[in-house]
Amino acid sequence: MKNFTSIEDISDLKTMISKALSIKANPLAEPHKGKGKTIGLVFLNSSLRTRLSSQIAAQNLGLNVLILNASQEAWNLEFADGAVMNGGTVEHIKDAVEVLNQYCDIIAVRCFAGMQSKEDDVNESILSQFLKYAKVPVISLESATRHPLQSFADCITITENWTFDKSTMNRKPKVVLTWAPHIKPIAHAVANSFTEWMQKMEVDLVITNPEGYDLDPKFMKNTKVLHDQNEALKDADFVYVKNWSSFENYAQMPEIKENWMLTQEKLKLTNQARVMHCLPVRRNVELSDEVMDSENSIIYQQAKNRIFSAQTVFSEILDGLNSGK
Amino acid sequence: MKNFTSIEDISDLKTMISKALSIKANPLAEPHKGKGKTIGLVFLNSSLRTRLSSQIAAQNLGLNVLILNASQEAWNLEFADGAVMNGGTVEHIKDAVEVLNQYCDIIAVRCFAGMQSKEDDVNESILSQFLKYAKVPVISLESATRHPLQSFADCITITENWTFDKSTMNRKPKVVLTWAPHIKPIAHAVANSFTEWMQKMEVDLVITNPEGYDLDPKFMKNTKVLHDQNEALKDADFVYVKNWSSFENYAQMPEIKENWMLTQEKLKLTNQARVMHCLPVRRNVELSDEVMDSENSIIYQQAKNRIFSAQTVFSEILDGLNSGK
Amino acid sequence: MKNFTSIEDISDLKTMISKALSIKANPLAEPHKGKGKTIGLVFLNSSLRTRLSSQIAAQNLGLNVLILNASQEAWNLEFADGAVMNGGTVEHIKDAVEVLNQYCDIIAVRCFAGMQSKEDDVNESILSQFLKYAKVPVISLESATRHPLQSFADCITITENWTFDKSTMNRKPKVVLTWAPHIKPIAHAVANSFTEWMQKMEVDLVITNPEGYDLDPKFMKNTKVLHDQNEALKDADFVYVKNWSSFENYAQMPEIKENWMLTQEKLKLTNQARVMHCLPVRRNVELSDEVMDSENSIIYQQAKNRIFSAQTVFSEILDGLNSGK
Repeated sequence: MKNFTSIEDISDLKTMISKALSIKANPLAEPHKGKGKTIGLVFLNSSLRTRLSSQIAAQNLGLNVLILNASQEAWNLEFADGAVMNGGTVEHIKDAVEVLNQYCDIIAVRCFAGMQSKEDDVNESILSQFLKYAKVPVISLESATRHPLQSFADCITITENWTFDKSTMNRKPKVVLTWAPHIKPIAHAVANSFTEWMQKMEVDLVITNPEGYDLDPKFMKNTKVLHDQNEALKDADFVYVKNWSSFENYAQMPEIKENWMLTQEKLKLTNQARVMHCLPVRRNVELSDEVMDSENSIIYQQAKNRIFSAQTVFSEILDGLNSGK
Repeated sequence: MKNFTSIEDISDLKTMISKALSIKANPLAEPHKGKGKTIGLVFLNSSLRTRLSSQIAAQNLGLNVLILNASQEAWNLEFADGAVMNGGTVEHIKDAVEVLNQYCDIIAVRCFAGMQSKEDDVNESILSQFLKYAKVPVISLESATRHPLQSFADCITITENWTFDKSTMNRKPKVVLTWAPHIKPIAHAVANSFTEWMQKMEVDLVITNPEGYDLDPKFMKNTKVLHDQNEALKDADFVYVKNWSSFENYAQMPEIKENWMLTQEKLKLTNQARVMHCLPVRRNVELSDEVMDSENSIIYQQAKNRIFSAQTVFSEILDGLNSGK
Repeated sequence: MKNFTSIEDISDLKTMISKALSIKANPLAEPHKGKGKTIGLVFLNSSLRTRLSSQIAAQNLGLNVLILNASQEAWNLEFADGAVMNGGTVEHIKDAVEVLNQYCDIIAVRCFAGMQSKEDDVNESILSQFLKYAKVPVISLESATRHPLQSFADCITITENWTFDKSTMNRKPKVVLTWAPHIKPIAHAVANSFTEWMQKMEVDLVITNPEGYDLDPKFMKNTKVLHDQNEALKDADFVYVKNWSSFENYAQMPEIKENWMLTQEKLKLTNQARVMHCLPVRRNVELSDEVMDSENSIIYQQAKNRIFSAQTVFSEILDGLNSGK
């Protein structure tokens, strides 16, 4: 594996999930695999799970870890090609990445959507520059349009919670990605990415969101979209709760009248569905305390699996480095 | 030891001090004790000594260390149960702690008093939620009402500086906790905690503070309180300098007329007392440069002992984890 | 080596460069040299290269690393001797350093010029206090008037890029330090320090800057200064680009009419000079994109050599500690 910024970087999802489950069973099995190598974790945005799970994954493999909270600890970055840098930005992304090339064997970066320019976000204006200038592998810790380490952890979690056997009549699970309310415009990365990865899983995926909130067709592809949440939730085996702002009317929040918060009442429509969320979650806005704290929630298990999605990816990247690929 | 948030978590103070002194004599004696285990140091507030001494203590034991400056690096936390999170808080403490449970073998947290609501502070509104939701041991790095790692270091320091022998006529040392001036309302944690720990030491404890500044009776118990500083300082062997705001008139600073700053002049009243302070100290406000820089000061020794109070506690917690207790 | 804050702390530059090149050839040759020892990296200012390269250097030697972003993570420091601390500063530098003495075997500190008081900056009002109160070795990670780890890396880089042989007719290279435009007053540390180190190298050093921008005579000594950039650039083998504000009219920016930005056009005056800059650089203000991205640039090589200048210095300091010197 050279880079890891989307599911396209994985050759076989089933094999990757199976590797992740082995690592979860014995996370300290390869404590020297990363010895003498350095991973730089660059944060342009806040992070709790990603920050901690990446560090644990790296430590489990014996990698040295450098953490850079770019804007607080270093310099404001310029992203425009050819910019005359006579304003507030102090260092060009090109130079920052070239320096990281000198210092790190792997660069991992978190760079959220700016939510100001649809074009910039859709084109991954920041991640694309890391990829352009990096001479070492680049791992996305969430970018403008995708959150692949989260989605990989989601796949691991669904795999752990579904068995193809008589009890499930060997059918595929129904997975519903449901839009949830929020108080401010939120990026599409988690929803896009979850959609993309579920399309490669043996699941029946349904997306449900209010009109005006359809995701980017590039990610939806031919996934079924329902604007009636109750209809979508019917017989669901997994419900993934997530807010996102409008894509069409970019970063806006067209008003909706129904209440889309996931409640116990709504869960009754499902097949005792497992409830998922990437965290952080706004309780009693996106979903109710009751749902969050119910036995249906596998949300903390998802969070834990962030360690193993990261460790699997780091391990594959190290294999690539060691074999010179 | 399961948790460490107050002296109540220690079975025998003498034994703990003696363990700490052994560790101080040979801090690298157990470099693999924490191998494969992770401690998360969560800072909701600023920290210098606690931040550095905890890291050193953890490294000495071979623990992996994760540091989280929660508000700068992660998300604003919500502490209210049942909150509808439609405001400025992004992640509920319940979820943050549940995630830390997944990632850490030990959680250590610094959470100062908010100094807004007496009820919140007295009830440890933040620490109590860490304790409520944590499934791994919790260590306080200072909470609203206590700073136990500081107080434990203070006990170690007093032990090092006092010998029961002919020269002291085998009497107990007189320890005076004296209120000091400050420019803004300061929490009670260090003063409460010092009082609580001294009550278990073989010392004669006297507290002195202006009227209106008596500590919470829950911590004072039957400790002698004098409102005349000079009277209190008389023949003191140890003087602990610390400011705190009013408890009765919570977080207020009732005006006082005398000057309570500890000076060389006042030190002359004592039995060549050793001077203590938890740091940071406001020089020439709480105590004079002369006192701070005199040979009477054992303040930096106290700071050094923060390593060993932390390492002893981490070590005991690891013993508990390893024995399954 | 006891401290490292200027070239005065080095006994022989040639030997040091040769050590650095050996370390660069095999950076992991002494992985246990720093075992059981702790270096504290204290940042009073932003840092990318220094922050990361110092960590890598320390890790390569097996040193424990403590990082303190002083103002964000700890307390606002007071630097005035005898201050009555009844204002915004919470901890005196004297006490902070004394505590670092207790916790660290080596203290490294970044403390930029304040650019408010010429006297304070010229007298190194911050670094001097670290040196005054430290009882362990102190390493400058850039101070008000010098950036010695950068200059040492610059010497390594020039050495790597120049060979005394027939092709160079065994002559010394011509090195030009050229002033560059900027949008705000910038400190003199890099320029001073580069001047000071080049004076000890086998090079012909010329400084060029607009009138009103001459460096402190203490650093210039008898180095040739030209106010005509074109004349200075003629036949240069190395061009070091850097802005600085006026020293005479301290921290001011007297207006200049010519354009001093280094362009390809100007590079043609040189002997196909290698271009150097300490980074971060303001592209198309200090130098053009064309120059920055040309094959003449050895700027990223300079950045990489920051690891080896730091590792050489840490290694020498450890030798001093181990031999008790």
